[in-house]
Amino acid sequence: MKIKVIKDILSANKQIAERNRRLLDSNGVFALNLMSSPGAGKTSLIIETIKRLRGKVRIGVIEGDISSSLDAEKISKERVPVIQINTGGECHLDANMTSPALDNLSLGEIDLLLIENIGNLVCPAEFELGEHKKVLLLSIPEGDDKPYKYPLMFHIADVVLINKIDLLPYLEFDLEGFSRAVKRINQNTEIFQISCTTGQGIEAWISWLVTNMHHPAH
Amino acid sequence: MKIKVIKDILSANKQIAERNRRLLDSNGVFALNLMSSPGAGKTSLIIETIKRLRGKVRIGVIEGDISSSLDAEKISKERVPVIQINTGGECHLDANMTSPALDNLSLGEIDLLLIENIGNLVCPAEFELGEHKKVLLLSIPEGDDKPYKYPLMFHIADVVLINKIDLLPYLEFDLEGFSRAVKRINQNTEIFQISCTTGQGIEAWISWLVTNMHHPAH
Repeated sequence: MKIKVIKDILSANKQIAERNRRLLDSNGVFALNLMSSPGAGKTSLIIETIKRLRGKVRIGVIEGDISSSLDAEKISKERVPVIQINTGGECHLDANMTSPALDNLSLGEIDLLLIENIGNLVCPAEFELGEHKKVLLLSIPEGDDKPYKYPLMFHIADVVLINKIDLLPYLEFDLEGFSRAVKRINQNTEIFQISCTTGQGIEAWISWLVTNMHHPAH
Repeated sequence: MKIKVIKDILSANKQIAERNRRLLDSNGVFALNLMSSPGAGKTSLIIETIKRLRGKVRIGVIEGDISSSLDAEKISKERVPVIQINTGGECHLDANMTSPALDNLSLGEIDLLLIENIGNLVCPAEFELGEHKKVLLLSIPEGDDKPYKYPLMFHIADVVLINKIDLLPYLEFDLEGFSRAVKRINQNTEIFQISCTTGQGIEAWISWLVTNMHHPAH
């Protein structure tokens, strides 16, 4: 019975996600769903991405948080349109919450929409929002065992960014073993090592992003 | 309607949690519910705690994971009884999952039960398991804004451990501002700075633990 309910929720979500995606497509907006643990660096990645693409790509942001608007305030300083979604306790965004946020953005004036999900490696993996690609951010201090512990998240990720790579000298993290584990779960995912602090690897990420925006293949 | 369902789930959970707590009490077991983001160091804290209390306190462990048993294997090397709960996708432990795990431990041979919850700062805060105290582990790399973003978790925590304090020189983290924010949400919580890598602050944590075991005040 419980499984039935969950399936119905997911199936209803999928329908709304498809409607969101059609709305984005009809406005020529390429959308990313950014997922990670709390504090892995989603907001920093968004700010770095805005800075690198300023004047080239028109960016909009949807910020998902349980109750605060701290990250939306940080991002609005970059002078891009930001809509805050407060889930009021829910541990993930879903397509239904995303829909009114889309209605509140001027989609015709946006090329790239960055959606920052709730910091959580579990439930966000189950709910499509209408995005074109799913970005998973994992940071060095979290440890290299995460693919084993949160396999669904790695299974659905189109790209995995290993953030805070500048902390590698201070921590034990087996980069090769991690990448092998990720590829075993999802051989199509791409992996980049980045640091939003030092800028390492950000060019490669931006290049992936721009390439996918122009050849979305979805 | 939806809220009604959630309330019923939480109220049913609370009843089972109380039954679990009575079972623990009748066996003289003091139980902790350890919660954190993925990779904040719950398993390392459990291992440090076992090492410091070996020969003095008989410890048992319940390991919550979505699908793997990596952490349970690490902990079983410390020669303590470990029960693995795999939630099969659920992002938190609940009292109902905890109950059969308790039945599979020889509670009469345990003084202290450490329950490692799923790595998640959201939903675990809503589900009591039958524990006597709630321990929230937050690590320096996650950033000092977490009390604003996950207020319920800080609201319910009896103790907040700031782990990976050895990484402070490499990261921006406002310890005073963080502690002020925590105290604003929950003035009764105690805060310790620790490092499971260097051992810093572990004595203070062990001292808190032993004091609370003997004067549980629950």
